[in-house]
Amino acid sequence: METPRTPVQPMLWSGWGDPGKAVGLDPAVRELLTEALGVTPPTGEPAGFGDVRLPAAELSPFVLASLRSIVGAEHVRTDADARIRHTRGKSTSDLLKMRMGDGSDAPDAVLLPGSHHEIAEVLRVCTAEKVAVVPFGGGTSVVGGVTAQRDVFAGVVALDLRRLDKLVSVDEESMLAELQPGLRGPQAEELLNGHGLTLGHFPQSWEYATLGGFAAARSSGQASAGYGRFDDMVEGLTVATPVGDLELGRAPRSAAGPDLRHLVLGSEGAFGVITSMRLRVRRLPARRRWDAWRFPSFQVGRDAMRALAQERRLPAVLRLSDETETMIGGGSGCLMVIGYEQGEPPTFPGADHFGAEPAERWAEGRYAGPYLRDALIAAGATVETLETATHWSGLPRLYEAVKLALEASLGRAIVMCHVSHVYETGASLYFTVATAAGDDPLARWDAAKIKANEAIGLAGGTISHHHGVGRDHRAAYAAEIGPVGVTVMRAIKKSLDPVGILNPGVLIP
Amino acid sequence: METPRTPVQPMLWSGWGDPGKAVGLDPAVRELLTEALGVTPPTGEPAGFGDVRLPAAELSPFVLASLRSIVGAEHVRTDADARIRHTRGKSTSDLLKMRMGDGSDAPDAVLLPGSHHEIAEVLRVCTAEKVAVVPFGGGTSVVGGVTAQRDVFAGVVALDLRRLDKLVSVDEESMLAELQPGLRGPQAEELLNGHGLTLGHFPQSWEYATLGGFAAARSSGQASAGYGRFDDMVEGLTVATPVGDLELGRAPRSAAGPDLRHLVLGSEGAFGVITSMRLRVRRLPARRRWDAWRFPSFQVGRDAMRALAQERRLPAVLRLSDETETMIGGGSGCLMVIGYEQGEPPTFPGADHFGAEPAERWAEGRYAGPYLRDALIAAGATVETLETATHWSGLPRLYEAVKLALEASLGRAIVMCHVSHVYETGASLYFTVATAAGDDPLARWDAAKIKANEAIGLAGGTISHHHGVGRDHRAAYAAEIGPVGVTVMRAIKKSLDPVGILNPGVLIP
Repeated sequence: METPRTPVQPMLWSGWGDPGKAVGLDPAVRELLTEALGVTPPTGEPAGFGDVRLPAAELSPFVLASLRSIVGAEHVRTDADARIRHTRGKSTSDLLKMRMGDGSDAPDAVLLPGSHHEIAEVLRVCTAEKVAVVPFGGGTSVVGGVTAQRDVFAGVVALDLRRLDKLVSVDEESMLAELQPGLRGPQAEELLNGHGLTLGHFPQSWEYATLGGFAAARSSGQASAGYGRFDDMVEGLTVATPVGDLELGRAPRSAAGPDLRHLVLGSEGAFGVITSMRLRVRRLPARRRWDAWRFPSFQVGRDAMRALAQERRLPAVLRLSDETETMIGGGSGCLMVIGYEQGEPPTFPGADHFGAEPAERWAEGRYAGPYLRDALIAAGATVETLETATHWSGLPRLYEAVKLALEASLGRAIVMCHVSHVYETGASLYFTVATAAGDDPLARWDAAKIKANEAIGLAGGTISHHHGVGRDHRAAYAAEIGPVGVTVMRAIKKSLDPVGILNPGVLIP
Repeated sequence: METPRTPVQPMLWSGWGDPGKAVGLDPAVRELLTEALGVTPPTGEPAGFGDVRLPAAELSPFVLASLRSIVGAEHVRTDADARIRHTRGKSTSDLLKMRMGDGSDAPDAVLLPGSHHEIAEVLRVCTAEKVAVVPFGGGTSVVGGVTAQRDVFAGVVALDLRRLDKLVSVDEESMLAELQPGLRGPQAEELLNGHGLTLGHFPQSWEYATLGGFAAARSSGQASAGYGRFDDMVEGLTVATPVGDLELGRAPRSAAGPDLRHLVLGSEGAFGVITSMRLRVRRLPARRRWDAWRFPSFQVGRDAMRALAQERRLPAVLRLSDETETMIGGGSGCLMVIGYEQGEPPTFPGADHFGAEPAERWAEGRYAGPYLRDALIAAGATVETLETATHWSGLPRLYEAVKLALEASLGRAIVMCHVSHVYETGASLYFTVATAAGDDPLARWDAAKIKANEAIGLAGGTISHHHGVGRDHRAAYAAEIGPVGVTVMRAIKKSLDPVGILNPGVLIP
């Protein structure tokens, strides 16, 4: 058992990340916002921490006493600080609500269990008492994945897994590590790096997101071309459910029935709580190096990515911005960023070779996006992202459809896109949108998002490549898997969580 | 739409494969059987085709008329020939029963539907009339995967998918092909090769097994190191179930909930009938070349395989026989067979390089094993295979445990093994066992198999790496996924097949 030394700075309650890393806006950017998007500074100040309106806590003294007896009194928190910090995730809508002082989705209590056994007991008590349980890792969901639907329940508790933060064991022969779900990205890397190992999983949420969340939401990191998605790394899982434990993964692959690991992966806390994972690890590379190219168009760049994927010579990181995203970054054409760890990086006749610098700059700022979003929101802009994926032949249509839908709905908006996850048969599209907040930013974005989701559905894309379903994508998800898929999902839910206490309102249509 | 030109020779009813390819036994082998194993030639002749005892057909005239109206009268077969040829699969026990004239597991009728729509209608009628339906591809299961449990049902029909044998479309940009499930291995390759493409999926059952079966049973082919398992190739699936259709796979990968494709893969016909598949294809390589090495021990050879897997420089085919299997093949030490398609094959300091010849010999005989089994059974031996997988660090213990269990149960027996599917974190073990049939070969093998399954469970292996669960592994499968896994599987089954008509007795514990 090893524990990380790096402490985690508490996340900014009303925005993203480490408050010490907050950024300001360049005057030039402010000017661009005004001129290009008609952004006007918000009138009035955002709510302060003390202004947040929390609902009256609902848990009965009996339930609280039961929970205290399981996890220890000091690990049941009902103070405003704990409740506010476990209210919703980190979508732009989530942040806007907090800035308005809307704490209506706060849990009644935050539990900090210390073991699988305690979690199993909490699920037992909460099932008996009809208390909703929101498994809570880094709280970084951007799709409403930790926003409880209070409904019929006798209260809502957030089950914060931060105390499950151990590297349990390393099997260097099998290149497997047993890790606990509450470890944040940097903590897991620190522990593994100590053994000369790495997960190689670096999503933008890496600083705060947890291993359990990566698994539960099918995360995909920036080095997915070389290391695979997080679900490719999950070899074994221990899951506590209201009806008992699941222990999955005796071999890398098996023909013993359907692969039930793939039911837990992507289950977003609705089927159970992941309490331990056996993850495939790799040797820490000697160096992580960078390279960059400029392509004349998004299509030409995508064709080059496709060739690499289909010839199976992908570097670790492969990422291509469209013309707009490249322009916003100060360039022209379409910028491709390559991260590689061995040998030579790929070369592209007909494209312009930039060398390492633009890619290194990208790599330095790779976790900065959400900090910048806070500054943009403060300046009166709405900035949000959404992503999808489909097969290569369908990508041009999907790209155009989503872009058009967003632009048509929002009017003055910057819609930019990149491809950052590629496969032999297809790729993801990741859109970033900036527009003026307007009088009702929540309604304005919701309307645009509905149009974007419709466009994704009509163009045959999946509703999410790596953000997940949460509450925000539930309707689109139901359409994607169809009525028979919905029937199956409900049946699984009912079998594992008969009372429906786990993350109610999330995932299950 | 393209249809294969290669006709399929009807499979030998009482044994394996194309009757024209039957082999005899070398006198030297006969001598070895007698001397090493105490095999004595069987007394009496095996049952002839006309001797097979079939149960009286149970389907009511009403059901038969309904089924004829759906698929056409000529596609509802109730003759002895059709019934016998759809009785059970091709495990050694299955063959022994047929040789005894035991046709008790025959279906009442064999249906040959021509479309997804017809299959959906058949499922509807059979649900209403409580008729069991056994989805039937090549009929090559070696775990009882097509052996109906008649029980409570008003009859049993085999749903033979051979008429669904089209290459529907090819998307060369996405490297995807839509193929129907009734295509046999060689037919699918013939159609794809015509476009310069290949699946690269070559299991030993390849001559007769179908694409639908590969998916439903999570097949893994001899070139899995280079091409992945069959489940890695399945990008999209259309499934007819008693409650409606499932249409899965909008993108290579998605974060839209659990990956429901992985519920259909490995579902062995118990959840629905796969009626179409979008499969990842690759360019047909210019050449497929071979190489071979001799390692001083199984462990040293496995370590070399592990290094290739963990360094991600696997050739297309990688296979290592243990000392016994190498000796039975006429060699010494441990033979490693390598198939490669580009560049240079890996080299191994400290091992003996044989060059291509032994590997080419293996490749020529790669589909011959089951033909040889027929000859051995005819000579009075019992020959069977079983396979498992686990992580690299657990392989030595798993190998010893299974070998010991089989030897302890059978007494005089040859137990040999190879590793033929490797991953970064682990590998498969494939055992072949030869022993004297004895007075009651079925009971003798069943007893040994139970001991082997126990050993696999205790040593932490999966009950099957690529043969599947069927009826034979049901108990071990239940132990592997545990009571909560069983609960989930039963819930899924109930949601998709409420009356339980699909492949009753198979898979679901």
